[in-house]
Amino acid sequence: MVNELESFFSHNIKGMKRSAIREILKLTQRPEIISFAGGLPDPTLFPTTELAEVTAEVLKNEGTLALQYGTTEGDPLLRKLLVERYQKQGVNIQEKNLIITTASQQGLDLSAKIFINPNDTVICGLPSYLGALSAFVSYGANIEGVSLDEHGMRSDLLEAKILELREKGIHPKFIYTIPDFQNPTGISMPEWRRIEIIAIAEKYNIIILEDAPYREVRFAGIPQKTMLELDRSGRVIQLGTFSKVFVPGFRIGWVVANEEIIDKFVVAKQATDLCTPAFVQRISARFIEKGYLDKNIAVVTSAYKQKQEHFIKCLQEYMPKDVTWTTPDGGLFLFLTLPEYIDASEFFQTAIEQKVAFVPGTSFYCNGEGKNTMRLNFSFMNLEKNEEGIKRLAKAIALEITAKKTTPTF
Amino acid sequence: MVNELESFFSHNIKGMKRSAIREILKLTQRPEIISFAGGLPDPTLFPTTELAEVTAEVLKNEGTLALQYGTTEGDPLLRKLLVERYQKQGVNIQEKNLIITTASQQGLDLSAKIFINPNDTVICGLPSYLGALSAFVSYGANIEGVSLDEHGMRSDLLEAKILELREKGIHPKFIYTIPDFQNPTGISMPEWRRIEIIAIAEKYNIIILEDAPYREVRFAGIPQKTMLELDRSGRVIQLGTFSKVFVPGFRIGWVVANEEIIDKFVVAKQATDLCTPAFVQRISARFIEKGYLDKNIAVVTSAYKQKQEHFIKCLQEYMPKDVTWTTPDGGLFLFLTLPEYIDASEFFQTAIEQKVAFVPGTSFYCNGEGKNTMRLNFSFMNLEKNEEGIKRLAKAIALEITAKKTTPTF
Repeated sequence: MVNELESFFSHNIKGMKRSAIREILKLTQRPEIISFAGGLPDPTLFPTTELAEVTAEVLKNEGTLALQYGTTEGDPLLRKLLVERYQKQGVNIQEKNLIITTASQQGLDLSAKIFINPNDTVICGLPSYLGALSAFVSYGANIEGVSLDEHGMRSDLLEAKILELREKGIHPKFIYTIPDFQNPTGISMPEWRRIEIIAIAEKYNIIILEDAPYREVRFAGIPQKTMLELDRSGRVIQLGTFSKVFVPGFRIGWVVANEEIIDKFVVAKQATDLCTPAFVQRISARFIEKGYLDKNIAVVTSAYKQKQEHFIKCLQEYMPKDVTWTTPDGGLFLFLTLPEYIDASEFFQTAIEQKVAFVPGTSFYCNGEGKNTMRLNFSFMNLEKNEEGIKRLAKAIALEITAKKTTPTF
Repeated sequence: MVNELESFFSHNIKGMKRSAIREILKLTQRPEIISFAGGLPDPTLFPTTELAEVTAEVLKNEGTLALQYGTTEGDPLLRKLLVERYQKQGVNIQEKNLIITTASQQGLDLSAKIFINPNDTVICGLPSYLGALSAFVSYGANIEGVSLDEHGMRSDLLEAKILELREKGIHPKFIYTIPDFQNPTGISMPEWRRIEIIAIAEKYNIIILEDAPYREVRFAGIPQKTMLELDRSGRVIQLGTFSKVFVPGFRIGWVVANEEIIDKFVVAKQATDLCTPAFVQRISARFIEKGYLDKNIAVVTSAYKQKQEHFIKCLQEYMPKDVTWTTPDGGLFLFLTLPEYIDASEFFQTAIEQKVAFVPGTSFYCNGEGKNTMRLNFSFMNLEKNEEGIKRLAKAIALEITAKKTTPTF
């Protein structure tokens, strides 16, 4: 054996743990358990027929290109088509402003690689996407949290946090935010809140990292301009992905930012994986070209609308009083709040006994708050399974409430 | 604009440059130039027919699985098949010893992430694969080089280097080596040299990172045991890839190591890209299952054998005397040495005028040596193009020799 192997590991890897969610997912692979824990899209909606058609064409007509190494920046056709989509939405970017990444998780990783020195500070929502926090921590970042209200990250608390950090001589590298159907809460920022956050970022000269994986999974309400679009000072970096509106199994994402920042992404990506698989990039490009992506987005949003409405109806029907939840206009998740005296992590075992699972909300709070919350996914399962799962969860919560109320506390 | 954007970037990214090779590749995209600079496999050998068959089957029979998120460790079937391949070769590993990566470049990146703190030292060959050096430097590593002879990294110089570092209180984290058909030189280590290197690593308790991308592209000589197989103390981490024997456009690689180290790779990969594309992993697995991979390796090695033999013949026929080269038994590259008074980087311009390109060898030397060397790829082009390119290169070198000999030096 290697002597003292532990001493070989980097400080950063020593500070990292396996994702709590992925460990929970393993626990919940028992077939009798209904799990709201995952963050998976509904696989029955995957456009396999269209993909079979497009893939066969790509292999036939441009196989030697699609199976070869690609450029680090990404497939030229895919970049062109993505840029055109942005331009159609009124966002004036060029190809030099966009790089393809190996899903948006790589966008997060490279953002950290580019900006974070050990002990640098970044600001995130309370709660916020766990995979982003992991990526930042893996480069030694300190995470400072700012609470959300029903309109997303609170701008008053954001400014207060920046001033508090200033007192300590700390200038945060960036503000990480998910303006549309935030993971884990499902909350969206109205345009005025986005403008407020950008104004603060401008005032204090901070970069904004806008994570937009759910952006196009809107099934209710009115689309709000992205922070990228609202930005006037080139300080917004936007991360996009096909994982929720197309297929996650391709691992295709992208980053949009000012040219100087994209240049750093290119340099960082070269050392990380050279390029994203050319094969799935070219298939995606041809899929877009044929109009299949827009068709697929319509299919997904329509299905998720039905799922969310049914989910909310079931929650209303089965949940004990004193339990509340968010009602998102899009995305894959909603956030449930238990009475304050219930710790969702402790309650997890009771739920498993009732054969239902979820992610305890505290996993998403960098400061350990949110003990009485949980994230529920409504996209993956069918209506029947969702309903049965909610029944089980409601029963488990009712049992927990009764147990807590009858247990004298000392 | 963001004020003082430069001040936002991390120390590590500031230390990184765009890969010299990738920049050269851009220069050489002019169609009239014959370029030996790339490291691309021959795309006419890509098994597009078999891939069309397998891909259609995967989409039809297991599309929902192949298009969904996968586990961080990798597709279970692909891992099983890869482990079986190792076992057949007499290497006793289990699935817990193997993780799929987004090509072996990610294996290099994650190795650095796991082991390197800023200013840690790693040992590499002189010369060595540039992409590995970039990955290590991107985490703040200091690179120390050890010269090669015709048997690869010199073990006497390796031990001397380790002792020299010890004097300064430096314990290197790992030794990076490519035992089979090394990039850029094409040189392979005989088994006895591998055993010597391992013995030194054991004596001084250092980890070995064995990069084996060309391992199965052997077209001459006798296969030598890998360092992974020869290792008795669990200190060898081996990186594998499909890029040279199957297709690079899938970006599939893997890491084999002891369980405790693989566990760190899993944690690091979770934060980096969550998982490698499930789609291309499952296609690869079915491709192996059908026996197509072994068939393809036979096709590739037979074709590259012919290319290498023809390439050497042309070098013998056209090159001026005082020019020497390696004669590799496998891989994609050979290494050419010019007379000492010619700097290949300066000469590059003359070559471009003759419409031929290469990578100056000095790019691969962490200490700036190798000024009179160049890397030539023989796998990408057909025999005719290779011959024409060698003619042009030989002419350019002859011109350079004449110019240097007639220019008085002061």
